[in-house]
Amino acid sequence: MKTMNCGCGCSRTDLPWEGRGTKLDISGCRFSLYPMTNDFVSVILGALEKTDTSAVWSQSDALSTVYRGKLSYVADAVRGIFVHAWRSDVHMALEGQFSKGCPGDTDGDSLLGREEPLPNMPGIKDKHFPVLCKLALYPMSTENYIDEIAKVWRMAEEAGLNPVSIHYATRICGDVHAVFDYLESVCRLMEQSVPHYILHFTLSVNSPTNEE
Amino acid sequence: MKTMNCGCGCSRTDLPWEGRGTKLDISGCRFSLYPMTNDFVSVILGALEKTDTSAVWSQSDALSTVYRGKLSYVADAVRGIFVHAWRSDVHMALEGQFSKGCPGDTDGDSLLGREEPLPNMPGIKDKHFPVLCKLALYPMSTENYIDEIAKVWRMAEEAGLNPVSIHYATRICGDVHAVFDYLESVCRLMEQSVPHYILHFTLSVNSPTNEE
Repeated sequence: MKTMNCGCGCSRTDLPWEGRGTKLDISGCRFSLYPMTNDFVSVILGALEKTDTSAVWSQSDALSTVYRGKLSYVADAVRGIFVHAWRSDVHMALEGQFSKGCPGDTDGDSLLGREEPLPNMPGIKDKHFPVLCKLALYPMSTENYIDEIAKVWRMAEEAGLNPVSIHYATRICGDVHAVFDYLESVCRLMEQSVPHYILHFTLSVNSPTNEE
Repeated sequence: MKTMNCGCGCSRTDLPWEGRGTKLDISGCRFSLYPMTNDFVSVILGALEKTDTSAVWSQSDALSTVYRGKLSYVADAVRGIFVHAWRSDVHMALEGQFSKGCPGDTDGDSLLGREEPLPNMPGIKDKHFPVLCKLALYPMSTENYIDEIAKVWRMAEEAGLNPVSIHYATRICGDVHAVFDYLESVCRLMEQSVPHYILHFTLSVNSPTNEE
């Protein structure tokens, strides 16, 4: 059968896509780490080694890595790899997309049985550094997507993340944990509000660009 | 007035967002270049210097750059900077999002009077190198977004870009110009098909990861 991709764009195996989708509680995050250094391989591999991915389903290719499972564990693993990859003297970006509810998703490629505490948080919660972030939220299958965005903007204000509008995205900034807490809370709100969402985000640390 | 951001997420200056939007032919691309080398600043600045941005409205911050104007010129400028930034020995990624039609967009921050030939194409059309690409398309304000995706998938097949489905995205690969031609043709189809779309894409060159 032909494997196709939906706009969001998860796996589909038929055309048209009928009878697909999952009722399981599967969230996912596809992300890429970009350390702007000659040592980018060791930065990435070192971070991977320190990150506990036992609570998520994981797959990597030349472009990115995807974690799938319960949202709290997916978010914990992405936060873990980002904090572990951080170096005080390296400009680095992480590009990612959280998503849940694609009508073409499947029950497979996930890990949902985990019940234990978050495996990465204890090792990273005391590391703090400032993060610049841009994000763009896409609530799908709803005409009122603007209303959902409004809620999320207010959440950023309430979290003290100083949201600023830029064309095609919103910028926020704050401590790494405040930013990750916010991204996860946006996902929580979306999974209660819309059948399908995608939250694209980019994190940046140690940028040499001075902004006034 | 408070500046806010829609999901897609362009600028809004009121809440709720009424009476906004533009009927002008403004497409945009927000993107970031990530050269994985100690020389990342000179790679980026060198590429900026060689790229003719006279046909687009442009703005940069610490996270990304945005070009706005007629689609052909926006796409020409992004292609220009990517080709100019390419070095045979540097692993580099470009993360971007093409978009048009956000209901909260404005008439401003654009350049639409240009009629001349594409300014960057003559200087880059004979440079060729293979590119890996992942993309995710979000046709907004339509319930049938899956149908739009199906068309776009077939276009990738017809263009010989070997589309492969991965969770939350589609992968394609090909010569840099074939990939950019395809991205632009997806935008052309979307602007005829839906009132508002966003096309997220990531380009990668010279990855050290071997895939079987």
